[in-house]
Amino acid sequence: MPLVARMTVAGVGLIGGSFALALRRAGLVGEVLGLGRTAANLAVARERGLIDRVVTDPAEAAAVDLVVLAAPVAACVTIAAELAAHVHETTVLTDVGSVKGPLVAALEGCWPRPALVVGAHPIAGSEASGAGAARADLFQERLCILTPTAATSPDALTLVRTLWEGIGARVEAMTPATHDAILARVSHLPHVLAYALVRTVADRREADRLLAEYVGAGFLDTTRIAASPPEVWRDIALMNRPALTAALADFRAALAEIERLVDAGDGAALGRLLEAAARARRGLGGGT
Amino acid sequence: MPLVARMTVAGVGLIGGSFALALRRAGLVGEVLGLGRTAANLAVARERGLIDRVVTDPAEAAAVDLVVLAAPVAACVTIAAELAAHVHETTVLTDVGSVKGPLVAALEGCWPRPALVVGAHPIAGSEASGAGAARADLFQERLCILTPTAATSPDALTLVRTLWEGIGARVEAMTPATHDAILARVSHLPHVLAYALVRTVADRREADRLLAEYVGAGFLDTTRIAASPPEVWRDIALMNRPALTAALADFRAALAEIERLVDAGDGAALGRLLEAAARARRGLGGGT
Repeated sequence: MPLVARMTVAGVGLIGGSFALALRRAGLVGEVLGLGRTAANLAVARERGLIDRVVTDPAEAAAVDLVVLAAPVAACVTIAAELAAHVHETTVLTDVGSVKGPLVAALEGCWPRPALVVGAHPIAGSEASGAGAARADLFQERLCILTPTAATSPDALTLVRTLWEGIGARVEAMTPATHDAILARVSHLPHVLAYALVRTVADRREADRLLAEYVGAGFLDTTRIAASPPEVWRDIALMNRPALTAALADFRAALAEIERLVDAGDGAALGRLLEAAARARRGLGGGT
Repeated sequence: MPLVARMTVAGVGLIGGSFALALRRAGLVGEVLGLGRTAANLAVARERGLIDRVVTDPAEAAAVDLVVLAAPVAACVTIAAELAAHVHETTVLTDVGSVKGPLVAALEGCWPRPALVVGAHPIAGSEASGAGAARADLFQERLCILTPTAATSPDALTLVRTLWEGIGARVEAMTPATHDAILARVSHLPHVLAYALVRTVADRREADRLLAEYVGAGFLDTTRIAASPPEVWRDIALMNRPALTAALADFRAALAEIERLVDAGDGAALGRLLEAAARARRGLGGGT
């Protein structure tokens, strides 16, 4: 008997689809229902065995033991509010969103029992998207952050933790605010920079030459995440605005320091600064 | 009989070493002499067959048909000045530096016959460095920009073009100033941003947690080039300062536009902007 008899995944893309597939493979979930906007994507999800069937009726989608929200974060709030009217007394609600504070507060605000809302954010994924990109091993050895609040039921937290650990993720708990401050810097900031960098180059010319013709591997690496689904990152930027604004201020200060040394022609100090950054980056690994 | 009977490579790292190896494999060069600061790296270069022998005497290094400067750009000027005193009347000088305007001007200023100076910049390479990373196929299908000036001899230009084309590169000629304006945007700017982004995260904490523990694949991609040799990028930033400053101003404007939409909570306009950027990035390819 699986830990979760029946589950609905709202948004069967890379993350939601991979989570469902991994849980099925691990025998942790029985029936999986898929809810989504795009019929073609849901058809792929069913063909690939990520879900058992597609649901469109909110009442049917809510008649499960666990609801997993894996849509862009603004849509998650809308979906939860829609399901909340039909949901069982014992249905646990979790999500995989990249912003936690405002999202978890909104979910707690609309769910019949706020104690059963457990915010989660797996640090995985890529610029790939859709059910076609889902993989059962996406979360193996990857970190999944859980963000319980004072309202969260220990049993609901344990359930969600057990599911993530059961598919190979490392789980760490922290407050939603801490999560949002960290992710603003290590994830939301780089995305915004990548989008801005693409705009600095795309469709622009220099001496009648299209800049895009001259990009090399470095530019492509640096901007890869700008190919991510834009609606996902629009929602994240808007919902995590205060933390993102603080991260942008830190970044601008770091950039200004480099530019100041370049302007001053201070090769010695600039060399030390870049050397320290290169050492720090090499220490992070990831194909350097 | 190879096109170039004897050649000196000053700086036998990833680029210089790969160029030498590819030319040897293609039968375009006879004897290859290696000049450099680091005995251990030169030993690797000799073991791997990138060079035939190590030279330390400037007169010996200058007694060749072609000198290839592949050191950090500031060092290139010093090396050229040192060899200039000993060089043959017919020795061609070329380089592989990422900045062309000030470098080519300095090389023309010190070389006995400025007509024999041919600036070149292959758009290839990675954050890897040293003779150990050199590969004969590094420039296959890659662009190499040549930057002749009014002073450049057509024969010298043809020689350098023939060498690059002979090892599989696509060659394009443009003025040094155009090169520097383009590369400031597509290459120097991303490097500076990557260094600044690493500094925004490295060694920093949030609620007692080290930010570096939470970086994912996106952050690692975005900052990969910050692991590049820092002295190379220090020199480039200093030497191409005016163009880099202009590129940074363009980038700041693009970033400010995104931040303005986030601050205004204008999801529709932000979504359109990010969608256009995502489409542009996908159009560039490179593993999206």
